Amino acid sequence: MTSGPRLAIDAMGGDGGASVMLAGAALARAQWPNLSFSLVGDEAVLHAELTKHPGLTGCSDVIHAPDTIKGEEKPSQAIRRAKTTSMGIAIDLVKQGTAGAALSAGNTGAMMAMAKLSLRTLKGIDRPALAALLPTLGNNDVVMLDLGANTECDPRNLVEFAVMGAAYSRIALGVERPRVGLLNIGSEELKGTDEIRDAAAILREAHLQLNFTGFIEGDKLSRGDVDVIVCDGFSGNIALKTIEGTARFVADLLRRGFTSSFRSKIGFLISRPATELLKHHLDPNNHNGAVFLGLNGIVVKSHGSASPKGVANAIGVAAKLAAQDITRRITEDLDQFPGHLTARANAA
Amino acid sequence: MTSGPRLAIDAMGGDGGASVMLAGAALARAQWPNLSFSLVGDEAVLHAELTKHPGLTGCSDVIHAPDTIKGEEKPSQAIRRAKTTSMGIAIDLVKQGTAGAALSAGNTGAMMAMAKLSLRTLKGIDRPALAALLPTLGNNDVVMLDLGANTECDPRNLVEFAVMGAAYSRIALGVERPRVGLLNIGSEELKGTDEIRDAAAILREAHLQLNFTGFIEGDKLSRGDVDVIVCDGFSGNIALKTIEGTARFVADLLRRGFTSSFRSKIGFLISRPATELLKHHLDPNNHNGAVFLGLNGIVVKSHGSASPKGVANAIGVAAKLAAQDITRRITEDLDQFPGHLTARANAA
Repeated sequence: MTSGPRLAIDAMGGDGGASVMLAGAALARAQWPNLSFSLVGDEAVLHAELTKHPGLTGCSDVIHAPDTIKGEEKPSQAIRRAKTTSMGIAIDLVKQGTAGAALSAGNTGAMMAMAKLSLRTLKGIDRPALAALLPTLGNNDVVMLDLGANTECDPRNLVEFAVMGAAYSRIALGVERPRVGLLNIGSEELKGTDEIRDAAAILREAHLQLNFTGFIEGDKLSRGDVDVIVCDGFSGNIALKTIEGTARFVADLLRRGFTSSFRSKIGFLISRPATELLKHHLDPNNHNGAVFLGLNGIVVKSHGSASPKGVANAIGVAAKLAAQDITRRITEDLDQFPGHLTARANAA
Repeated sequence: MTSGPRLAIDAMGGDGGASVMLAGAALARAQWPNLSFSLVGDEAVLHAELTKHPGLTGCSDVIHAPDTIKGEEKPSQAIRRAKTTSMGIAIDLVKQGTAGAALSAGNTGAMMAMAKLSLRTLKGIDRPALAALLPTLGNNDVVMLDLGANTECDPRNLVEFAVMGAAYSRIALGVERPRVGLLNIGSEELKGTDEIRDAAAILREAHLQLNFTGFIEGDKLSRGDVDVIVCDGFSGNIALKTIEGTARFVADLLRRGFTSSFRSKIGFLISRPATELLKHHLDPNNHNGAVFLGLNGIVVKSHGSASPKGVANAIGVAAKLAAQDITRRITEDLDQFPGHLTARANAA
């Protein structure tokens, strides 16, 4: 394999800290041997962790950051310490062109604020959105955005999310004309908030490189009926976490059922390949890695509680997007839009 | 058994119409022989359906309604036809005291508007909320509200929902001091919208008959950590339907897994008691029946696509709430609150 992208890893973020982040990087490197890393964090901690992962030593440099962003820290406070924190320095490596993407498992709000300030939004985009791929019963994953970067959104934000989500679907999944649905509480035109109805009206009228299919309700997210689900960050975060919690709830019920009698235990052992497949499919670590779309550079968020396997998957997402030059391709997509979509001044 | 409550059934609402509604009533009557019904709808249709259910004839009267509310009809249009529609007449029977509760599987927005206009809200309550019981991994179901009656809510609405949800938990589940959580996208105080943060501040300060435990995220709804989940109708509807869709998604994956090989099929047959239990637990028909809280009278919403079993369960919810005189008991709860919670004029 040829030389792949260099990734800047905020090694101090997330519940497990440097130990989990470096274990994840080591797993990723074993899987994709063309990756290299800039590991950002407390250098004493990182050098100590590196001794556990000989596979990382040849392909990683350590960049010292004296400080870290805390989970509960306000974004407005966090950005003042961008230059001294592992998160801020990792993002800055993308700005400098040293890294093809940055990855952190830390405070989402702080990441959003720092990434926006450092990398700036793309021309025509007011606000970046956090997007992830979710499994469906269809042939393809579905792109869902925003997942929590923007608590409240106006119609124009939602339209921009639709455009960026469609570009992501095209690039990551090869869907030529992605079907885009707006998350709502009913499929009729009069349902929902003014913002959603206005966004739907714009999407219906605009001639975009996407197929706007109208509103989609919460019970149809995983059916594979659409390629992109657009929502404000509040609803998106609620829906995403509800999917996660419900999958865990069902798995727990199943476990209880299977261990409730001797007969069920035997049946469970026999059908284990089937339940292992389900377990694999439902494990959020296998879908880890949400990307901030709409920035001049790639920034990927790993779940705070992700395992090393989850971190490795998020690194895989970052590497793929960097290799596919998603920033340039979204810019090209945006350039093709009618003027009224890009008329608003860039608010970054 | 002594004479139980009389229920007014909008026999024309829902995807399956009179056929499903009457089959549901017959199932409910077989289970709870003290029930009686006022079946409201097209009398020719209802008399024809009644011939299929001899168990209903002795305990039901048919009340003719020349008209029905359509699924996509605007609430503002629907209320003008309250007096001629099956939904409006069923609700009016509660107002007249002829029925202990009304049940419909029709248009939720129209039901809310008609119920509010006909029954009026309780003193101290600005807006009714749609509440349902959801299964958890804990010992009790959790009360969740609002599930779609109010797309946007101010802090005072959310506080009222907390009070009514706590009363419902106390009455329906016997929880003395219900733990109440506010649905949000993070557990830190600064997360979410202004409305949610302000509602949390009020709930923290107020000395209510409930234990406010702070914010709860989407991945923890089914854990049994709280007894009541409070949210605006938009988020609540998204979360409720996402739970429904994800449960179906997981069940579909499981079915695919179990039928993927001969070995898995054998294992499935052996462990069938366990998977049947899961199926029972996840079937939305077994949790059907959401109640509009905050009105001078009981109005229950059945899911539009519910089966006869689902309709019977919703009838069971309505009958239980009528027998327990929930309206009087919520009123008593509201009377005990500090003045500032009931100071606002009743907007009904």
